[in-house]
Amino acid sequence: MILGEGKSLDQLKVILSAMVRRKRNILVTRLDQEKATTICNQFPDGEYDNDARTFCLVQQKIEVTGHGKVLVICAGTSDLPVAKEAAITARMLGNEVEELVDVGVAGIHRLLARQELLQEAAVVIVVAGMEGALPSVVGGLVAKPVIAVPTSVGYGAAFSGVAALLGMLNSCASGVTVVNIDNGFGAAFAANRINRKV
Amino acid sequence: MILGEGKSLDQLKVILSAMVRRKRNILVTRLDQEKATTICNQFPDGEYDNDARTFCLVQQKIEVTGHGKVLVICAGTSDLPVAKEAAITARMLGNEVEELVDVGVAGIHRLLARQELLQEAAVVIVVAGMEGALPSVVGGLVAKPVIAVPTSVGYGAAFSGVAALLGMLNSCASGVTVVNIDNGFGAAFAANRINRKV
Amino acid sequence: MILGEGKSLDQLKVILSAMVRRKRNILVTRLDQEKATTICNQFPDGEYDNDARTFCLVQQKIEVTGHGKVLVICAGTSDLPVAKEAAITARMLGNEVEELVDVGVAGIHRLLARQELLQEAAVVIVVAGMEGALPSVVGGLVAKPVIAVPTSVGYGAAFSGVAALLGMLNSCASGVTVVNIDNGFGAAFAANRINRKV
Amino acid sequence: MILGEGKSLDQLKVILSAMVRRKRNILVTRLDQEKATTICNQFPDGEYDNDARTFCLVQQKIEVTGHGKVLVICAGTSDLPVAKEAAITARMLGNEVEELVDVGVAGIHRLLARQELLQEAAVVIVVAGMEGALPSVVGGLVAKPVIAVPTSVGYGAAFSGVAALLGMLNSCASGVTVVNIDNGFGAAFAANRINRKV
Amino acid sequence: MILGEGKSLDQLKVILSAMVRRKRNILVTRLDQEKATTICNQFPDGEYDNDARTFCLVQQKIEVTGHGKVLVICAGTSDLPVAKEAAITARMLGNEVEELVDVGVAGIHRLLARQELLQEAAVVIVVAGMEGALPSVVGGLVAKPVIAVPTSVGYGAAFSGVAALLGMLNSCASGVTVVNIDNGFGAAFAANRINRKV
Amino acid sequence: MILGEGKSLDQLKVILSAMVRRKRNILVTRLDQEKATTICNQFPDGEYDNDARTFCLVQQKIEVTGHGKVLVICAGTSDLPVAKEAAITARMLGNEVEELVDVGVAGIHRLLARQELLQEAAVVIVVAGMEGALPSVVGGLVAKPVIAVPTSVGYGAAFSGVAALLGMLNSCASGVTVVNIDNGFGAAFAANRINRKV
Amino acid sequence: MILGEGKSLDQLKVILSAMVRRKRNILVTRLDQEKATTICNQFPDGEYDNDARTFCLVQQKIEVTGHGKVLVICAGTSDLPVAKEAAITARMLGNEVEELVDVGVAGIHRLLARQELLQEAAVVIVVAGMEGALPSVVGGLVAKPVIAVPTSVGYGAAFSGVAALLGMLNSCASGVTVVNIDNGFGAAFAANRINRKV
Amino acid sequence: MILGEGKSLDQLKVILSAMVRRKRNILVTRLDQEKATTICNQFPDGEYDNDARTFCLVQQKIEVTGHGKVLVICAGTSDLPVAKEAAITARMLGNEVEELVDVGVAGIHRLLARQELLQEAAVVIVVAGMEGALPSVVGGLVAKPVIAVPTSVGYGAAFSGVAALLGMLNSCASGVTVVNIDNGFGAAFAANRINRKV
Repeated sequence: MILGEGKSLDQLKVILSAMVRRKRNILVTRLDQEKATTICNQFPDGEYDNDARTFCLVQQKIEVTGHGKVLVICAGTSDLPVAKEAAITARMLGNEVEELVDVGVAGIHRLLARQELLQEAAVVIVVAGMEGALPSVVGGLVAKPVIAVPTSVGYGAAFSGVAALLGMLNSCASGVTVVNIDNGFGAAFAANRINRKV
Repeated sequence: MILGEGKSLDQLKVILSAMVRRKRNILVTRLDQEKATTICNQFPDGEYDNDARTFCLVQQKIEVTGHGKVLVICAGTSDLPVAKEAAITARMLGNEVEELVDVGVAGIHRLLARQELLQEAAVVIVVAGMEGALPSVVGGLVAKPVIAVPTSVGYGAAFSGVAALLGMLNSCASGVTVVNIDNGFGAAFAANRINRKV
Repeated sequence: MILGEGKSLDQLKVILSAMVRRKRNILVTRLDQEKATTICNQFPDGEYDNDARTFCLVQQKIEVTGHGKVLVICAGTSDLPVAKEAAITARMLGNEVEELVDVGVAGIHRLLARQELLQEAAVVIVVAGMEGALPSVVGGLVAKPVIAVPTSVGYGAAFSGVAALLGMLNSCASGVTVVNIDNGFGAAFAANRINRKV
Repeated sequence: MILGEGKSLDQLKVILSAMVRRKRNILVTRLDQEKATTICNQFPDGEYDNDARTFCLVQQKIEVTGHGKVLVICAGTSDLPVAKEAAITARMLGNEVEELVDVGVAGIHRLLARQELLQEAAVVIVVAGMEGALPSVVGGLVAKPVIAVPTSVGYGAAFSGVAALLGMLNSCASGVTVVNIDNGFGAAFAANRINRKV
Repeated sequence: MILGEGKSLDQLKVILSAMVRRKRNILVTRLDQEKATTICNQFPDGEYDNDARTFCLVQQKIEVTGHGKVLVICAGTSDLPVAKEAAITARMLGNEVEELVDVGVAGIHRLLARQELLQEAAVVIVVAGMEGALPSVVGGLVAKPVIAVPTSVGYGAAFSGVAALLGMLNSCASGVTVVNIDNGFGAAFAANRINRKV
Repeated sequence: MILGEGKSLDQLKVILSAMVRRKRNILVTRLDQEKATTICNQFPDGEYDNDARTFCLVQQKIEVTGHGKVLVICAGTSDLPVAKEAAITARMLGNEVEELVDVGVAGIHRLLARQELLQEAAVVIVVAGMEGALPSVVGGLVAKPVIAVPTSVGYGAAFSGVAALLGMLNSCASGVTVVNIDNGFGAAFAANRINRKV
Repeated sequence: MILGEGKSLDQLKVILSAMVRRKRNILVTRLDQEKATTICNQFPDGEYDNDARTFCLVQQKIEVTGHGKVLVICAGTSDLPVAKEAAITARMLGNEVEELVDVGVAGIHRLLARQELLQEAAVVIVVAGMEGALPSVVGGLVAKPVIAVPTSVGYGAAFSGVAALLGMLNSCASGVTVVNIDNGFGAAFAANRINRKV
Repeated sequence: MILGEGKSLDQLKVILSAMVRRKRNILVTRLDQEKATTICNQFPDGEYDNDARTFCLVQQKIEVTGHGKVLVICAGTSDLPVAKEAAITARMLGNEVEELVDVGVAGIHRLLARQELLQEAAVVIVVAGMEGALPSVVGGLVAKPVIAVPTSVGYGAAFSGVAALLGMLNSCASGVTVVNIDNGFGAAFAANRINRKV
């Protein structure tokens, strides 16, 4: 698990080489495309996801050790990168993951039409930008843990995700918890803490 | 139409007396209870609403000049004072008004159960605090003008209505417009501008 | 109606092709020039507006279904892109639109000289950056619905449109409603909700 | 589960009476002392906690349905009211709860001395004001779900809990989730979602 | 010239007594009514203004040493206290002062009707709360120095005068300068610096 | 007087050509170097200042119509661009201008050594970034009008000039007025309003 | 060392009694007058400072263990409470303390007249509200450690000390460090860390 | 000591040449790589540090005049640039410096394992981004002066270092002082003020 952002190519190569030698599974998040090209050349067994900006290198089969399914729900197509980062992270950590896309609250029936998916999940990650209202609706529909991820999608008074963040912190659905803006990784990590078999 | 807040009792009495003489209908908003007691004693034909903090004195029958119904929707019971200010103002301005209370997004089915009410309205005022998500859902359900009113209901990161205000400004439902925090009066005034028969 | 921002060229092409097949009229907003060049090549019947950053492809004659005229007023020449986005959107939605440009409050007589235009409008959209004062003056001159659009024009303490947004939310003209910063599209959509013939 | 704040005594009495009739267990949060006196007189079987500002009325034995222990950790004595609200809520929801008080990061050894307690917990709620650093340390010590609750404890640049909130959202310990400032209730509700036996 | 706010009665008495002995003219600003009562009893030759919250004690005839007239304009009646503080201060500093009240931009014709007053002034102080738009209009009408004073009048997104302050700092009328929120004293002091005969 | 920022090259050329025909003196502010190159080629009689980012084209001799000297003081060398914009603007408006550079408050003796310069000025413009303290010191040393210009110089908690802006608005020297961040033009315009011979 | 704020009288009594038994010297900060009356009655050997809101109970002679003098400088009389908290704390911690009051930057000569005092100090604590400019001047005059304490003195755009805090963080005098708003205690504690004999 | 940021290459060359002639030791901070290349070519005896973005030119042997060791601690590898700026500055100013890297609070045992290093230091500089919690832990472990440096490391609600800054200002460890975001230079300068032999 490596945060790509703020690390130089040289730093990344050193860390990756060490992990490759130790046969560890590797996930680099927030890796921009330019660095990714170099990394993919040097570590050709790995895979870069353009949307999620993640690089995965699986050296040991990932066993599903999570208790139930992690469901990643996403309000709009612009929120997809963060949702994918969450989904990929959760899978790398050993969880079964389902994804549900483009079910924003302005078209509430699209969400309501997929309720069985919601009810099956052990943990729900809800990714939304703009007004960040989706976790409140989801939190009212399911009794399971709901982790809300605000995204920086929007403009003007969205303030790079602050509007969504505040919306989620003030959710009228009790027991919704929140992670940092665009922090799909953190949401998946939290979901994994919850979903772990003991 | 008088904003009570920031005016002294003496200022209010002078203005009210003048309006009484001119046989005008009077609406005072944001009038605190202490001042209201004095005002009600001096102008016993008027009526004070404890929740809305409005004082109304009807000297000429209010004719309904609005085109259609104004529907005032309110997310939680704590948002009621603002919703009532909006409803009373809209009525004083000559509109037929309906009210729909306690239909927050965490219990989305309560709202969906009342869709016929939504479809009948000519203008919809949606009052909500906390994450201010309700206008997005309503804006997706109706094609009519939707005016969103954020309230200062909430605590902590609600920042006295800022979270709701930002949520509404970033609504993913196109064409929702917004007024100032707790400004039920302004929302009704805007609804009246829309609903006026020409 | 497609928000161009945050969508990749590939995503846009897929959506556009589908809409072309279904003979739908198409409006893409916030489309940057680089993407626009490619889109215009692939869909040569469409038209890109450099200022408004909109791409329009009219496949079926747009019928004017709006009740009255939508007037788009704009404080300074730097606010033009947002005003044009509003005007183009309103036209695409089936409204007759008039435009009034460069009538900022520091030269109040330019606005006052055009009062007949204001009085003719059914809905007024007022676009302004910097201190965002124009909607207050307009709201005092007309009894019709006024939708205020703050723009990110300005520098320093304009805070990318926040000063104008706050100014408009606190307008001393009753019943002015507000949309997000630079949201010409949303203002036009709201105007259309108001102006629709039933 | 009733949020006392923003509700009048009359509203509270109506709601409580209805719940008493239905033999429901009752928890009122954020109930100030003045209202509490009246409520306690009318519902003498209930119990008011001065610190937590909660009123509990148990009409049916609370069965422990939670999977494991919920541990509530609290940085300083000033954070106790929020921690107690969390603990009481978690118990009312059917969870076994442990409390660990006054283990702020400026005296890190006090926390380290109680590691066995941390390791036993199924879910950890960490309550802290000021710089809100405790969840980061705890999140590094345990693999279990960690829910961080910022409190409004502090002054000046604490900005009524904003400093703690931001600290927690930016925790360098992966997978810490956050609730609103002073929202002990919400943290407990989230812990209960996690800790529920299926 | 004494800022009353933040000074104890004892501190004020000591300072005032010393100034009385030295036969100085005295102006105390931001003096609350409670302290004012005591001060007026002890210094019965002074005069307290309830609106402006100023205490003036003139021991030597104030000579008019200012070059021209200082005009204090005020948008709404709620802005009067700040306007009066400015007017009283300017007079105490030796300036001829005119006042123009209740000429907010939502009723622009009231201001335009008084243009001769504007043109006669040597310096104009413009006091406004809410969106703070008045200085932009005034700055466009006169060529003289314009000092804008934002007031804390308003609610919600007025943020205790921040909206008005930002509006004024971003005035589209060139050469408007601004002082702190509610700082009528400072505006008058600046006007006096400008208006002084050399 | 043209604000270059936010105007396209085409817009600028049109405006400039019109002004050239009318033999008007021209000042373009906030003109970036790229556009300046084109403008200078087309209008070779004009002059571009790299620091101030201004373009001046003098077609009629500028008569000094100002009453006294405008002194522009500048705290650090990084503030020079804004100071120069102020100085050039004031000169174009017909004022005699003096400049005093690099007299920040951390080396207070450099400022104190130049007091005669301060005392000679009719109006003082004080340009400072970072903590923006210089106007307070200057305001205490001179009795003349002091216009403070915060600059965006600084980093981190300077918040692009907000720290300096707030410092200046809260100046403990009475009667200092403030313009927008980096608004050298506005300060000069205000100085000109003050310094005009009647 | 006890922070009085946020502790109940009962909590305070318990802690104080324990410390009295252990013959420890006691300093309670931020103790409001109401609680202080009770505390003083119960612990009559202690002393309450009305300005600083501190309660001191000296049970063992305080030995001066600090290396040099701690100088506490204070810009205005309204900043005195915080300055006194700093001075009293520093003395209780075993430092020799000097105080210099009312030397704000708008009257710079008052400070310059006391330079010998500045040069004698081993550590300087500078307390200032409003624009918080004093530490920059002092930091330029002395080579010793300078600790800046912003105070909440001011109004409007002072934002309860934020303006002063930002000013101090952006001081153009290198090596000035800052503590929280109104945190005289923390400044003294830091000064003591510096001034300690090893 | 020259702040490179905001200075042009020409300005830098002039200043550097002058200092070279006077045989002064030179430190340029915040010098970007592009300018550095030119500077290094012209002043080949100097050395540029890529991480710290500092240029050092030692013309006279640096004597260690500091009293004890300055220890620079750094939470994560992304904070290294700021830590290095601090370390290099402190050395240039004549201090012995130790560095301790990657000891963030989420892995508290790495810090606790190096306690002897902490105890040996005369002054401790603690550099941390994200939640900025490290100074609180360090401040609890050592009695020496602790200077906290927030960094802009992080994303979303880190707000470019504001979260870390607020965390440090509200540290529950008494006597921690703070400098501006990313201000490694300032922290070293403050450490030098403290560590100077008299």
